[in-house]
Formats: sequence, structure tokens, C-alpha cells
Amino acid sequence: MSINSFGHVFRFTTWGESHGPGLGAIVDGCPPGIAIEAKFVQHWLDKRRPGQSRYTTQRREKDEVEILSGVFEGRTTGTPIHLMIRNTDHRSKDYSEIRDKFRPGHADITYWQKYGLRDYRGGGRSSARETAARVAAGGVARAVLKQLAPSVSILGYLTQVGEIPAMRNQFDLRKIESNAFWCPDDQAAKRWAIYLDKLRKSGNSAGAVVEVVARGVPAGLGSPVYGKLDADLAAAMMSINAVKGVEIGEGMNAARLTGTENADEISMGPCGPEFAANHAGGILGGISSGQEIVVRFAVKPTSSILSPRKTITVSGDETEIVTKGRHDPCVGIRAVPVAEAMMACVLLDHYLLDRGQTGSTRGKIG
Amino acid sequence: MSINSFGHVFRFTTWGESHGPGLGAIVDGCPPGIAIEAKFVQHWLDKRRPGQSRYTTQRREKDEVEILSGVFEGRTTGTPIHLMIRNTDHRSKDYSEIRDKFRPGHADITYWQKYGLRDYRGGGRSSARETAARVAAGGVARAVLKQLAPSVSILGYLTQVGEIPAMRNQFDLRKIESNAFWCPDDQAAKRWAIYLDKLRKSGNSAGAVVEVVARGVPAGLGSPVYGKLDADLAAAMMSINAVKGVEIGEGMNAARLTGTENADEISMGPCGPEFAANHAGGILGGISSGQEIVVRFAVKPTSSILSPRKTITVSGDETEIVTKGRHDPCVGIRAVPVAEAMMACVLLDHYLLDRGQTGSTRGKIG
Amino acid sequence: MSINSFGHVFRFTTWGESHGPGLGAIVDGCPPGIAIEAKFVQHWLDKRRPGQSRYTTQRREKDEVEILSGVFEGRTTGTPIHLMIRNTDHRSKDYSEIRDKFRPGHADITYWQKYGLRDYRGGGRSSARETAARVAAGGVARAVLKQLAPSVSILGYLTQVGEIPAMRNQFDLRKIESNAFWCPDDQAAKRWAIYLDKLRKSGNSAGAVVEVVARGVPAGLGSPVYGKLDADLAAAMMSINAVKGVEIGEGMNAARLTGTENADEISMGPCGPEFAANHAGGILGGISSGQEIVVRFAVKPTSSILSPRKTITVSGDETEIVTKGRHDPCVGIRAVPVAEAMMACVLLDHYLLDRGQTGSTRGKIG
Amino acid sequence: MSINSFGHVFRFTTWGESHGPGLGAIVDGCPPGIAIEAKFVQHWLDKRRPGQSRYTTQRREKDEVEILSGVFEGRTTGTPIHLMIRNTDHRSKDYSEIRDKFRPGHADITYWQKYGLRDYRGGGRSSARETAARVAAGGVARAVLKQLAPSVSILGYLTQVGEIPAMRNQFDLRKIESNAFWCPDDQAAKRWAIYLDKLRKSGNSAGAVVEVVARGVPAGLGSPVYGKLDADLAAAMMSINAVKGVEIGEGMNAARLTGTENADEISMGPCGPEFAANHAGGILGGISSGQEIVVRFAVKPTSSILSPRKTITVSGDETEIVTKGRHDPCVGIRAVPVAEAMMACVLLDHYLLDRGQTGSTRGKIG
Repeated sequence: MSINSFGHVFRFTTWGESHGPGLGAIVDGCPPGIAIEAKFVQHWLDKRRPGQSRYTTQRREKDEVEILSGVFEGRTTGTPIHLMIRNTDHRSKDYSEIRDKFRPGHADITYWQKYGLRDYRGGGRSSARETAARVAAGGVARAVLKQLAPSVSILGYLTQVGEIPAMRNQFDLRKIESNAFWCPDDQAAKRWAIYLDKLRKSGNSAGAVVEVVARGVPAGLGSPVYGKLDADLAAAMMSINAVKGVEIGEGMNAARLTGTENADEISMGPCGPEFAANHAGGILGGISSGQEIVVRFAVKPTSSILSPRKTITVSGDETEIVTKGRHDPCVGIRAVPVAEAMMACVLLDHYLLDRGQTGSTRGKIG
Repeated sequence: MSINSFGHVFRFTTWGESHGPGLGAIVDGCPPGIAIEAKFVQHWLDKRRPGQSRYTTQRREKDEVEILSGVFEGRTTGTPIHLMIRNTDHRSKDYSEIRDKFRPGHADITYWQKYGLRDYRGGGRSSARETAARVAAGGVARAVLKQLAPSVSILGYLTQVGEIPAMRNQFDLRKIESNAFWCPDDQAAKRWAIYLDKLRKSGNSAGAVVEVVARGVPAGLGSPVYGKLDADLAAAMMSINAVKGVEIGEGMNAARLTGTENADEISMGPCGPEFAANHAGGILGGISSGQEIVVRFAVKPTSSILSPRKTITVSGDETEIVTKGRHDPCVGIRAVPVAEAMMACVLLDHYLLDRGQTGSTRGKIG
Repeated sequence: MSINSFGHVFRFTTWGESHGPGLGAIVDGCPPGIAIEAKFVQHWLDKRRPGQSRYTTQRREKDEVEILSGVFEGRTTGTPIHLMIRNTDHRSKDYSEIRDKFRPGHADITYWQKYGLRDYRGGGRSSARETAARVAAGGVARAVLKQLAPSVSILGYLTQVGEIPAMRNQFDLRKIESNAFWCPDDQAAKRWAIYLDKLRKSGNSAGAVVEVVARGVPAGLGSPVYGKLDADLAAAMMSINAVKGVEIGEGMNAARLTGTENADEISMGPCGPEFAANHAGGILGGISSGQEIVVRFAVKPTSSILSPRKTITVSGDETEIVTKGRHDPCVGIRAVPVAEAMMACVLLDHYLLDRGQTGSTRGKIG
Repeated sequence: MSINSFGHVFRFTTWGESHGPGLGAIVDGCPPGIAIEAKFVQHWLDKRRPGQSRYTTQRREKDEVEILSGVFEGRTTGTPIHLMIRNTDHRSKDYSEIRDKFRPGHADITYWQKYGLRDYRGGGRSSARETAARVAAGGVARAVLKQLAPSVSILGYLTQVGEIPAMRNQFDLRKIESNAFWCPDDQAAKRWAIYLDKLRKSGNSAGAVVEVVARGVPAGLGSPVYGKLDADLAAAMMSINAVKGVEIGEGMNAARLTGTENADEISMGPCGPEFAANHAGGILGGISSGQEIVVRFAVKPTSSILSPRKTITVSGDETEIVTKGRHDPCVGIRAVPVAEAMMACVLLDHYLLDRGQTGSTRGKIG
């Protein structure tokens, strides 16, 4: 079942809660002999780390990763890699007020309905802190891809915050790391800053759209039915906290197109097939085409807000709730490195799965 | 791995190609003692059957299901149920022209790139004919839900064809079966008919949006991380042919909302918690809340069209392609019963998974 | 979950009952482009077919396999291969007498206790007829091994019937196909014939020991903990009807040995490491060593016998039972091709799993 | 694939090496609300702990378990339980001599052949230290069984050391904890002590046979084909280090029996069916019958011995090896609590699996 595991042959299992001693990921099925150090994984964790701007939670976690197994003398051994991150700043007092109330829009109530209990300190497994473990696993996946499929590069960014979209004709990917929003349009980033400052002050929060693009992915990854590359990407992204929609290529907009518009016409380039457009988002019939793989998803606004909302208590009494604590006004920002990590894991998983099944079999074109 | 299987404990595996002798689904993990007959499954297959209006493919398949195992004296035995459907109208001649050309927007090219071969007769496993097997599996899931969770009802319909949306304030669910589009807004259905007639005559095709709603689903199905109910629904829907985006509740629109707008406030009703709205689409933190589960997805326009498109051949020569054959001008229409079937399978799978893990444990409210 | 599936990446799912219309196996994860014909699979089914001597059931099944999917123009497509075998000689009348009685030593009672029903016609899924589907799947595995790992050969035979062992110093593998018992010691075969004739006439049955040897298996298949090659072989063999014990190499006898006796000393041969003995049965720490893989298992005597045994009815009344029908006096005989098939499937599964994870990484010796 | 995970719905994943910082198990799928404390798990770890007599390794590990997640306020939460054990006494110097040599009968050579590397400090994942993680997972399984199926009790013991069997007619289960060998026959224990002292002094080691019995297991656990209870038990036991054979009930001896001897005749007792004998070991057709479940397995003698053995180096040079270090002269002794743990995990896994699939469906007898 493995309801806390993800992946087919490159498979990770995460453990840990927001307010326990720590959390971690066990990465199973990693190829042996891959050079890796904690520093390499730490790089990606630092990207996700809270408290780096006023637009993310002020919880101060160093998120230092320890590699407790599976790496020997600087190389993966092919056996389980345990990546552990200790919690250092989990002040439970912030949560005492919400002990018996359910936050609207939050997993509090469903967690209670399912398990008959609730980790009122911080959401237990429904806390976005679990995503640190994914980012660590993604760091390992990136190290492996670097060696086995060095052409692959993965880049995520925000394309929308609340009602304000970034402008694609203003995109400059070099700008992504220069603002607090992983935004390739620096004018949009400025507008978002103003918008979020206002929301935050009024005790409110905003949704966002994240896009992740993988370049240089070999053609042939995925399979035609339930092992579709896009089905796995959809599950991967939808499993990230607060995600309510996932798109591949044109996404929901594909409904508006006609067949002639949507067909990415094919020509023959010097290195193989070339496509006149990429409405498909790099995946046709569940299998990668060699084009850029484009995934996009919407993150809902944080449910833990300072504005009072009507709710009930565990005893069924009606009441109001105000969530203090230290919450992200826009969780979409920190979802960017998480989504990149999930993309890396899905691609490597399918790379290894394909290598197992098809070996070097490939249909030659031209 | 099971790249042709779906589900955790209620798990089905499909086999068969568009132009082989037939196709089928093996349903594993079905509870024993459930009353079922072929007729019950056939009902749902008939809903999906091609050739019922001029808006779907004119291929004439009776799609008669045979139950070859797992049912004895009218009841499930708890062992694998094999549901087989023979192909009767697979005229391969229609495909001879496209033997060496790749249809733009179609899996032809990626199938070739992965496997080094191609079933040029009709797309092999990438044909939407595979979805008949899912509908059959979904029929079994419905029969089980009817007995174990009789409150559950599942209903799918189209909300958009091309650029023309149905109007929610015109929805009348009783109208769904009275038009060729499973549309609850009969005025929209009329507009779609005109729109599709025009497109079809010009050798073109249209995308669509499908929505599936499950009512009466018990709270507590799903789990907080990778076994999220919505992650499995996303994978389920994205695994349907031509789907490019999946939404739960507000979906992509969640990005535009603020935290105060998005919070579905909670009050105490006579039978338990009640919610002021359902932006969440019935799932909070991956677990069902007891509200309606709302899933929506976009289907791209059919790639097999009569309008000529630029492409290449297997030999790498540039050329044009016109796809004759008998193709759906809007595959979204026939995706409705398929999506309902996937919803039924996901819900039952999580119902059984939850019954295994939590038994009768439940958090009481009030 | 997949309680009717076997394997990790080369994975098959079987369906069908002894007295239904037929049975089959869906083989998933098969590499594409492998030459295969029904005739090749049929060869192995013929080896298992009942009624070939008076020492196996007199049920007359032709066991003709049909390949209904996954093979196109003589080659595997990489998609599910459905191998179907129709039941032709399932006379239910033979079973009418035992409808309400449980055969001692048989699954009748536990099937009833679990599922609350029973396929009294012939044991449902607990019938050894299910093994025909495994033999078909094994035929596919053999075809793939032939192409990917042509050094591999698999051979099974009986080493004991009842209390009479075959003599290893009399083994001549060329004799295996020349007697009714797949026995490499033709003198033992003669003794078994006399012994079984006597038992059969007295309405009794006998157990047996089967040994399967795989030669030419590459070193490096398997993994050190739960993915051990021997753990998978143990599960594979124990899943065959009537098996009560499984041994690798020395097996249970390993308990009697000292460390000095058991250590297979290593020297360096012209093509790599050589071992002075093979107490390990070709597997060290769950991973193949390149030596012969030796698996052995015991099959209990058939429970369906003509001698009256005390039992109870479904209503709890005490009674006696005599099983008429057409049953194997020694099911071990027909278990030989089944065990060979399971060996082929396990080896190919681990070959593909290893190719996925480690690619061409290998530790060079010398 | 999960080559480091075990189980279907109650599923654990282990990590860690003999000579790294520690090891652990992530238990997934555990029911919520089960009372558990570290002390309860520790009890079983203490039973396995090394250095408790001169017949086990003198390595001094406290094997203190920490519960790092999944338990809140003394009860399981239904989310992953991480059980971590730090290594405290891993002196790598003992291993320096064997850095480049392969121990005959040990995984050294196959590990190298597969992964192209080797953790020469102590065998990496092939070390029996991994079994501490299983014992911890088994502790959780026992706590759950205690609440959900309190009738179940599990007891393991040694029945043979080297060539010396314990005598069944001398069995007194109360003696098991009173000698260093978990032996129910205290005279045999005395003979084993003398035998092992002699072997140990001569730099040699011995094999053993372990038997585990589960009483009070409800009828109906398991399933008829690949999800057989005995197939999972066989995989479970065969996955324990050094195990070369696994038996259920009569085991390999079943081959010697006739059908009349082997049939456990059934009568009707006050609480349900009763059986005249238990040749079946409590499992018929892969499903528990309510009788005692009896599993037995052989452990080979330790390969790490002081007597010199011929071997080769990584460079392919022939040499001799003497393994100093601190090794168990009879690893069978410490396999007892490991086998009990695996039995607990398999039984709980099938209990939950069965509860999911069949709910309260059961065939009533009488």
C-alpha cells in the first residue's frame, strides 16, 4: 500500500511530524556508485527553508540534513539512503488555542474524522513540513540524474499570485533567484510584494500558480496506460499540500482548442524530430517526447489565517477561530522547490523503470 | 510496478488493444458475496459505447462484457473477476495510410520512441478503446459500493465544449441523459451541437471539460501524504486518454482566492458538521470530509483529424498527414462514463483501505 | 496488494477457476521486441498437461494457449500479454457429492471460513489448474531470457516420491524426459511406478520432492534484504499448490553443517571466481553468485483421495468423505513444469530489476 | 519495488548498516489509537540483543529504540512510526584485515558483483544487525495484535543445533527462557552448550533449526494464490540472514507421507471445527484454519569463522582468510526473536488485509 511512499523503483518513504523530534525520507532503489554529499542535498533544502522573507512562515528551522545510511565514502551504495532533518523550532504553545477547534479549509477535521485523534500541535502529517523530506529525496534524484541523464535540467517558478499573473513576454529565467517569489518576471514580483503585504496585514492569505519545466528529458519515459508519466506527475503534484489543480502543457485550456490548433506539428531537425509548438507539455500518450516537460499547479491560500472564521469544536459547539502561529501568507512560494523535487523523483523513477524494461531498445527515426 | 494496473487493494489490471481480438480487466481484491450480474456492468458499458450519436466515433462495437471468473451463482467470490470484451468492428484498412506517419498530438511518435515498434492499426494500448475495460471494472466497483456504502452516488457530465461553457445557473441534473453530451444545461447542449457539427464538417475537433461529482461519500477516506484521495483521483483522471488537467473543487481557480474566501466555514448540523461552501471539493488534507467530492478535468481535442497537418515519417521524411478512420470529434463526451468508473474505483479502493487500517475507529464530533 | 499477482517489474496476474470457462495470465512489464509465438508457450503447457500418464489426473484438457494481446507481428510490444486457456473438460458432476463436506487437508474449509462461499465444483482458485496460467507466463519469461540472458537454462525434476529417494550418483539429466516422473535416475523412476500403482489402487496418494536448477544465471541478481532472490524464490515455490517446504542449496540440512563444511571456498578460474562446492545453492546474501541456483521443495500428498476420512459438513455435522473425481495420485509430478516456470519468472524479474537499478555497474574481480 | 520494504498494508521499510550511525524501521499502515510505548518495543529488542551469552557475538550494543514519529500521547496516530536504534559499538578496526578478501559463504562477493562496492567494515546491509529493525517493527505489530486479536500468541524456539535435535517428548515451553538457546528441552540445551563450546574453541560455527508457533490466529487470513499466508511467511523467514530452508507444518517431511496419513481429519468441537492432527501447520490452501501456525527454518552456520578458508581478493588473487571480529558461533540463537517479529508482522498484515477485503463476512460452520 505504502500510503507514505512514492515512486515505483526509485521509491521514497517519509516519516515525521511538524512538532515531533524530526522528519526524514528513506530513498530506496537508488543506483549505486553515484557521487553525493550532504552539501548537495542541503542546497535544495536551503531553497525551501522557511523564514527567508516576510512572505513565508517565520518559523526558524535550519533544516540541516544528515545522511544516516546508504552512502559510503562519498558514493551511494544502492541500499536505502536515510535523510534525516531534526526539528529545532517547534514551539507548541502557538497552537494551544486551536486544540479543540477545527480550522476551516484545513485537514484538522478530516484527520479527526479518520483517525479519531489529532496532533493539535501542528497538524501532524498534514503539515507542509513533510515536504522538507521530499526536497531531500529530490536532492538525491538530482544527483543521480546528473550522472545518468546529464542533459536533464529542472526549473520551477511562480506564474501567478492571487489574481495577479506574471507576464510570459516578460519572462527572464535569470531573474528567478533574484526575488522572493521565484518569479521570472520581476515586475510581477514587485506587484506581488505589494499585494501580499496588504493581505498579510489584514490577516489574510493568497493562492498561487507554480510551473515546473524539465528540459533535456529523453524521449520514451512513461507508458501508455496507468504508468503514464503525466499520471505520475499529477499524483506527485497533487500530493503536495494545498494543491487543488494540476496541468500538463495546455492544461485546462486544452478544452478551448481545436484539433488543428492543438496538434504540435512535427518536422525533422538535425538531431531528430522537432515540434512547431508544445501544447502537449512534452508528453504524448503518457510517454515523454523529448520536448520540455511542462507541469503547472494551483495552490490554495493558507487556511491558517488571522481573520476570524466560523467553525465548530470537537464537541460540536459552534465558535470562531483565529489562527495565530507562524504561517506562510502564500504557501505557493515554498512549493516551488518541493515541486522541483517531485519532478526530479518522477523523472528518475521513470528513467530507471524504462531502463529496466526496454534496456537500449529504441525506435530510430530517420 | 504494475504499469497496467490501478488501485491499492481494489486493484484492476487491463489488457488488450484497439485492433486485437479484444480487451479486458482483471479486478483483484473485490469483497466476496456481492450480488452482481453481467447486465449490471453492461449498463455502464452501454453508456460509453461508440456510435450513439454523430458526435462520437462511428465505429460499431457492441461492447458486450463477459464475466469469465470471480463470480459464482450471481455473487462475487473474492477472487479475480475477469471482464472481457471482444472487438468486433476493427477494420484495419482505415489505418493503412498512416502506417509510417506520426499523427501530431498523438502517441504514435512516443510509442515508437519507447518501444521501437508501433501498432499502426489503431494505436495499440494508446487507443481510447482501453477505457472500455475501466468502465467494466467501474461497474464492479459500483456494485460493491451499492452494498457497502449505499449512500454513495456518482454522476459525471460535460461543463464545456471548446470555448462554450455550460451555465451553472441553468443546471438541471435530470437533463443529463436527455442530450448527446451528458450536459445538465440543455441550452448549452444545443449550442455544442451546432458548434461540433461545424467543426466536424471542416475536419476539425474540439476539447471539453468533464466534471464528476460523488455524493454521500463517508468522511475519512484517503490519507495525509502520498495516499491522498485527491492524489489518487488526479492520477486516475490523468490516466484517461487526452486529459491535460485535473482539478479538485476550485481547482486552478483556487490560486485567485484569498484565505477568507476559500475557507469553507463549518457549523453543526443535525447529522454532523456542515460547511458553508465547498471550495475544497470534499477533500481536506487528502481525506474526504463528507461533502460532495468534485473532480473536473480537461480533455484535449482529438488528434486524429481530417485537416492536413505537417509531420514526419518513421524514416524521418517530412510530409503531411490526414487521418481518415472513424474518430470522435470530441472525445470528452465518451470520457464521462470513463471518469465515473475511475471515481467509483478510487472511492471503493480507499473505502477498503480505510476499513483495513482503521476498522471502526472514527473521531466523533459532538 | 495484488494478491493474485506475482513479481516486481516482470509481473503477472492470473484469473480463472477450475470449473469456469477458462483461465489466464496477464504478463505486465515484458520487454518489447522479443520474438515469441503461441507455439513456444504451448511447449511448456504441454509438459504440464494432465492425463499424460496414469500417475496424473485423467482430466482431459488440451490446455491450448491463445495470445490475446501484447504480441504484434510475432514480437512482444512491451504492453500486457494476455495468455488465455479455455477449460474444455470440467465435468462438475464428479463434485456433486462433496458439495457440503470439507475434504481434510484441502482448502475447502478455509476458503469457506474466509469468503463465506465455496466453489464446490472444483476448488475455485485453490485448484491446481491455476498453475497452467503460471506455466504460460513462464513461457514468456523463457522467451525473454533466451534473448537477454541466453546463458540461462532451467531444469526441474523429481528427487523423491513418498519415502523413496532418487540416487544422486545415478543422475543422468538426459533421462528426465524419458520417464513419467521427470526423474534423472531411471531406476528410481521404476521404483516410483510400482509404489504409486500400489497407492493409487488402495485409494491413497503420495508426496514428493521437486528440485529446480538454473544454470548460467549472471551474478548480481537480487538484493540484500527483503528483495532477496531466495526470498522471492521461496514465495514463488510456496505459492504452488500443496508445497509445504522450500530449500535453497543445502536447505534444512544446512543446520547440520559446521562453518568450515559449509563455506564454499573460492578460487580464481579463467572466467572469474570459482567455488569448491555449492552448499549455498548459488545465492549469497540474497544475491546470485553465478553458480547454479538450486531450489528444492516438498509437495504434500493429494488430499482428494478415495480412502474415507472423517470430516464435517457446512452445517457442522460429522461425517465421512471419499473424494472420487479425477485427481493426481502424486501432484509433485505436474509441479515440475510449474516450478520451472516460477523460476524463469523470478529470474527475469530480478534481471530487469537489476538492469533498472544498476545498469552496467558491476564490481570487477581480477 | 520496495526492495527494502516488507508487507502489503502493514508495511515496514528498514534502513541502516552495521557500521553506520544507526538503523531503523518505518512502519506504515499501522492502525490508529493503539496504546504503545518504547518500553514495549524494547522488551523484544532486549531479547535479540547481542552479548547475552558466550554463544552470541560479543559486540556490545544497547539497542535502545527511540520512537521518532507516529505515536502521540502514548497512542499510534495511524501515520508512519519511525523506530530508530543507534549503533554504539561498531569497532571498524576488526574488519581492516578483510577489506580486500571475500569471506566464503558470505555476501561479500555477491555484494561486490552487484553494486561494484562493498562496505568492508561490516557487511553493510547484509549484516544481521538489520534484523534489530525488524524486531522493533515486530514489537509494534505485537502491540496492535494485542488489541485487535488478543487471542494471538507467538512463540519461537530452537529445535536443533548442528546435528543435535531437541526431543519433542521433552518439550516444556516454560523452559524456553531459562537457557541461552531458547530451547524447550533443557537437556538438549545442555548438550548444545557443550557442542558449541567445543566448536567455538576450534574456530568453527554451527547451524540450527528455529520453530515459531502462533496460537489463536483467526481462521480466514491469507488468500488462495500469490497472497498465500504461507508464501508470505516463507518470504519473511527466507529474508532473515543465513536462512536456507523454510517449512510449514510437516515441511519437507510432507513428501514422505501418504494422503491418508497427511489428512488432518475434522470433527466438530464446542467452539467450531477441530482437527485430529496438524500436519498442515495451520494453513490450508494459503488460508489460516484456526489451528496453530507452525513455521520452521534452518539457519546455516556463520561464515565468519576463525578457521582459515581458501578465497580470493578483489584483484583476483588466491589467498586464505581468517575472520576475527566478534561473530555469533550460532546465528540461529538470535534468529528466534527475529522470526517471532516477522511472524507478528505477517499475521497483522494479513489480518488488516482481510479486514479490508472481507469485513465481517465469514462462512459459518454449524
